Amino acid sequence: MFKKRTDLALEARELWQESAEKTTRLSGVKASKQRSEGYPVNRVDILDERGEKALGKPRGTYRTIDLTTFWQRKADFFERAVRAVGGQLKELLPETGPVLVIGLGNRAMTPDAVGPLAADSVLVTRHLITAQPWHFAGFRPVAVQQTGVLGTTGVESAEAVRGLVAEVQPALVIAVDALASRRVGRVCATVQLSDTGITPGSGVGNHRAALDQETLGVPVFAIGIPTVVDAATLAADLLEESGITEIDEEKLRGNQQNLMVTPRDIDAQVRDLAKVVGYGINWALQDLEIEEINALLS
Amino acid sequence: MFKKRTDLALEARELWQESAEKTTRLSGVKASKQRSEGYPVNRVDILDERGEKALGKPRGTYRTIDLTTFWQRKADFFERAVRAVGGQLKELLPETGPVLVIGLGNRAMTPDAVGPLAADSVLVTRHLITAQPWHFAGFRPVAVQQTGVLGTTGVESAEAVRGLVAEVQPALVIAVDALASRRVGRVCATVQLSDTGITPGSGVGNHRAALDQETLGVPVFAIGIPTVVDAATLAADLLEESGITEIDEEKLRGNQQNLMVTPRDIDAQVRDLAKVVGYGINWALQDLEIEEINALLS
Amino acid sequence: MFKKRTDLALEARELWQESAEKTTRLSGVKASKQRSEGYPVNRVDILDERGEKALGKPRGTYRTIDLTTFWQRKADFFERAVRAVGGQLKELLPETGPVLVIGLGNRAMTPDAVGPLAADSVLVTRHLITAQPWHFAGFRPVAVQQTGVLGTTGVESAEAVRGLVAEVQPALVIAVDALASRRVGRVCATVQLSDTGITPGSGVGNHRAALDQETLGVPVFAIGIPTVVDAATLAADLLEESGITEIDEEKLRGNQQNLMVTPRDIDAQVRDLAKVVGYGINWALQDLEIEEINALLS
Amino acid sequence: MFKKRTDLALEARELWQESAEKTTRLSGVKASKQRSEGYPVNRVDILDERGEKALGKPRGTYRTIDLTTFWQRKADFFERAVRAVGGQLKELLPETGPVLVIGLGNRAMTPDAVGPLAADSVLVTRHLITAQPWHFAGFRPVAVQQTGVLGTTGVESAEAVRGLVAEVQPALVIAVDALASRRVGRVCATVQLSDTGITPGSGVGNHRAALDQETLGVPVFAIGIPTVVDAATLAADLLEESGITEIDEEKLRGNQQNLMVTPRDIDAQVRDLAKVVGYGINWALQDLEIEEINALLS
Repeated sequence: MFKKRTDLALEARELWQESAEKTTRLSGVKASKQRSEGYPVNRVDILDERGEKALGKPRGTYRTIDLTTFWQRKADFFERAVRAVGGQLKELLPETGPVLVIGLGNRAMTPDAVGPLAADSVLVTRHLITAQPWHFAGFRPVAVQQTGVLGTTGVESAEAVRGLVAEVQPALVIAVDALASRRVGRVCATVQLSDTGITPGSGVGNHRAALDQETLGVPVFAIGIPTVVDAATLAADLLEESGITEIDEEKLRGNQQNLMVTPRDIDAQVRDLAKVVGYGINWALQDLEIEEINALLS
Repeated sequence: MFKKRTDLALEARELWQESAEKTTRLSGVKASKQRSEGYPVNRVDILDERGEKALGKPRGTYRTIDLTTFWQRKADFFERAVRAVGGQLKELLPETGPVLVIGLGNRAMTPDAVGPLAADSVLVTRHLITAQPWHFAGFRPVAVQQTGVLGTTGVESAEAVRGLVAEVQPALVIAVDALASRRVGRVCATVQLSDTGITPGSGVGNHRAALDQETLGVPVFAIGIPTVVDAATLAADLLEESGITEIDEEKLRGNQQNLMVTPRDIDAQVRDLAKVVGYGINWALQDLEIEEINALLS
Repeated sequence: MFKKRTDLALEARELWQESAEKTTRLSGVKASKQRSEGYPVNRVDILDERGEKALGKPRGTYRTIDLTTFWQRKADFFERAVRAVGGQLKELLPETGPVLVIGLGNRAMTPDAVGPLAADSVLVTRHLITAQPWHFAGFRPVAVQQTGVLGTTGVESAEAVRGLVAEVQPALVIAVDALASRRVGRVCATVQLSDTGITPGSGVGNHRAALDQETLGVPVFAIGIPTVVDAATLAADLLEESGITEIDEEKLRGNQQNLMVTPRDIDAQVRDLAKVVGYGINWALQDLEIEEINALLS
Repeated sequence: MFKKRTDLALEARELWQESAEKTTRLSGVKASKQRSEGYPVNRVDILDERGEKALGKPRGTYRTIDLTTFWQRKADFFERAVRAVGGQLKELLPETGPVLVIGLGNRAMTPDAVGPLAADSVLVTRHLITAQPWHFAGFRPVAVQQTGVLGTTGVESAEAVRGLVAEVQPALVIAVDALASRRVGRVCATVQLSDTGITPGSGVGNHRAALDQETLGVPVFAIGIPTVVDAATLAADLLEESGITEIDEEKLRGNQQNLMVTPRDIDAQVRDLAKVVGYGINWALQDLEIEEINALLS
């Protein structure tokens, strides 16, 4: 069977349901839906080992915010998206303690740049609080790291983060990365939040070792934005829709190797979503209105 | 029948041959192959109205250099590519007279940036020759224009170029633009040269009105580099390869609208090819070795 | 006498007053002060040939908005600055007719990038009105041109603008450029508006031929932002302040040639002021609130 | 007495000699001159505590390569500069062991970007050697870190480097940073190498805590490139040259605060010198010709 690539728990569950076993019940996984600020939120909880095995992801909670309507630019679309992302994130995070935000990925490669770009919009406060504790008393300490990628640093993102965690000693890490989706409709239109850590490079790049509680010693919250579909996965979906079920994966992969499918205006979409995510992190961490965030970042 | 998108004359001919009429002979079109500096060169000449109608392109000569092996980075791959592109271009161009080089496309959108990036590597000499004619006597006058795109200028590329042609009065125009290919194997792996002018935005963007002898009053030579495949075209090809011949174009387009397929490392590939094209233009226009071009551009 | 460099009419008047002739009255020049949105506005009107000769600038009105307090970032500093610049500009401009906005200067050179960056924030509407006249009925047609600089285009800015004016046929041109100031306190802290056209490159660069009614055939309104002080001018001022009046200009220039004095964080200051100017142009041309401009530009 | 700012040991020695005490002998400091690849090299060795106190710098060797003639672009100017920088650096470094190269400074601020830009030209090999030790047997392991600046990370450069040193365990660190020079003639025209570590931010920025053997536990070699002159220092020099010796430092600083003097084309100069330094590091660390470095970096 052709193995379709996805980094979304939501889609891993869909793929499980589409597979031959869909007659049996998916154990160890709980799914639910809600809305936040007008945007649909899909929640998948992986509860135990059976769920982990079925979906191929570590146990924990995964929340996928559907921002499809963001691009219609209706009233307050930006503010609502920030509050949706920020509100869901806030529910996952411990309420206090210093935070290290990691922008994973390659700034020089558009679909992989969403992590670094999001980090650009995060309010950096750790040094201000250290320098003038009385003046910045109301802020939560936040540091930011942009790890770069293995090819330009020679260092795995996980190594670089571990080194900085030892120095900065945050209470938790938030890592932002680009993901691969299985459906083109979810590309640049969804944000997945989870409390399970992240294995960077599942998406566009290839930045392997996991960032999680085990490797870093502190809880790791992941924010992933699908920016590409693997071209072979898209092709396989198209063939299946046309009734072709016998797919020669090796042949299909061989032709489409190293190809990705993206929206035509991915540069603008990645930039806009990165800002939503950066602002959402500020919304979750600091006691500020969006206008105040604006003023502090300008 | 599904209409596959391509801007390559080479592929227009392939599509004609694949179509139902392939039993008849393609009249008004001549094709041939050669090699230049180790790279294959495919030549399609559209000779008359029948050829124009069959391939949907204006009459003239189209030369497609296959740079697939460029990416193996074997000995002198860059210099050979420059001489291949420059040599083919030189065969098309009038030997003397001032030149205006146009970088078409959107610098802020990776696959559409190849025109502006190529223009960055073109030796600009017009002002030097005007200022110090004796000192720059050996050089051919070259001016460069980066038109930007309609969305950020409010002006069609063709209008902008026409305005500058009236001021600069070049003997000829060379326009560089991104193209759409039908085959993923040709993306970032081919360069098409023609003496027929160009309708910008056939590729990634949408910069419509033609640049040609008729609209500009001087001959227009086009250099096109395929940087994307239309996702629906890729899908249609895949379905056909799997034996599905009845394709509902509207449905297929509907799903994949505004999607493009690109290589994963398109940022680097576009940058490298743009440099090849820019240097190739210098090679064709100036009496310089590649090392001399290097020194003048640094 | 050492010739101090300035592009501000305000400073040309100051220099005249400091000069030996300061005992005589400055004829043909009228000066006045006002405030706009909390920012001081200094107005110098050159009325006739005597004024032109005394200040070395063409007759017309010059308004310099003092944005020094902008950097204190007090309440609504951005919105007030936009309204101050936009309001002053609106007083100068004809009320109707299509507009061509020119971003002069070199985007790759920080202090010279203020023109291109301002142009990035201008709402481009010409093509939208052409395509959907009913939908964009309320907007004034605006096109934007970024001319680049002689060294990278081979074409004088004035030639390039003249070519486009012939195609686009605007009722007026607004040109934005970097200036040189004589006082460090005015660098990145003032905006000069005038109805006299502009000779580009007086500031950082060297983009000579004038853009004015005479060369372009339509009125040209200039917006200039001082981003540098000529190092020799700064030095001469310092020496004078210390009581040294005999300054060997050649020697002073010889040492400081090609040096400029800028604020340490010029990259950020240029970016912020360019946005003020771009928004100010929108404020003057379109019937929109700042929030609406924000939404249209995002 | 006005305290003139410089980060060059060479200039610290000059200032000492210009000072009142110039009649006494400068103890604990040895100076000498040589040439490398046609470029003058000035060597200052601080031998003991007396030398440290006199020059205000830690003991060690400081070599300043004078690249003034680089800008004349005579035969092989680039290759010779690379070999001059690389050759001097090689003399300082241990012959074997893994290396961590640090690009200090702010990429978004032109005169402070020389460190990050130099790091972009360094061959990164650590991950390749780990992945394919047999294939990359001839290379020395090199990792690269771009620390960013306190304002955008919340973390001191020294903290960030210490964290990564603990993970990567290099035998030595090479840190590249922008410096302030006292003489405009040395700006973008000299490179200082030393074996003493570095206190970042002496130059343009403000990235305080030292990187040296004491704080990092491994030897730290510094490469500094002057890209600015403090405006007040320039002013003081000018006043002194004009015979004014009583300078009110507070008043002079007050006026020129936060101003810097740079060459007009600093963007291009910083980019070119950063490449020289990056290539020089490769020359010192790897057994490669410059052409081979070129091919590996492209």
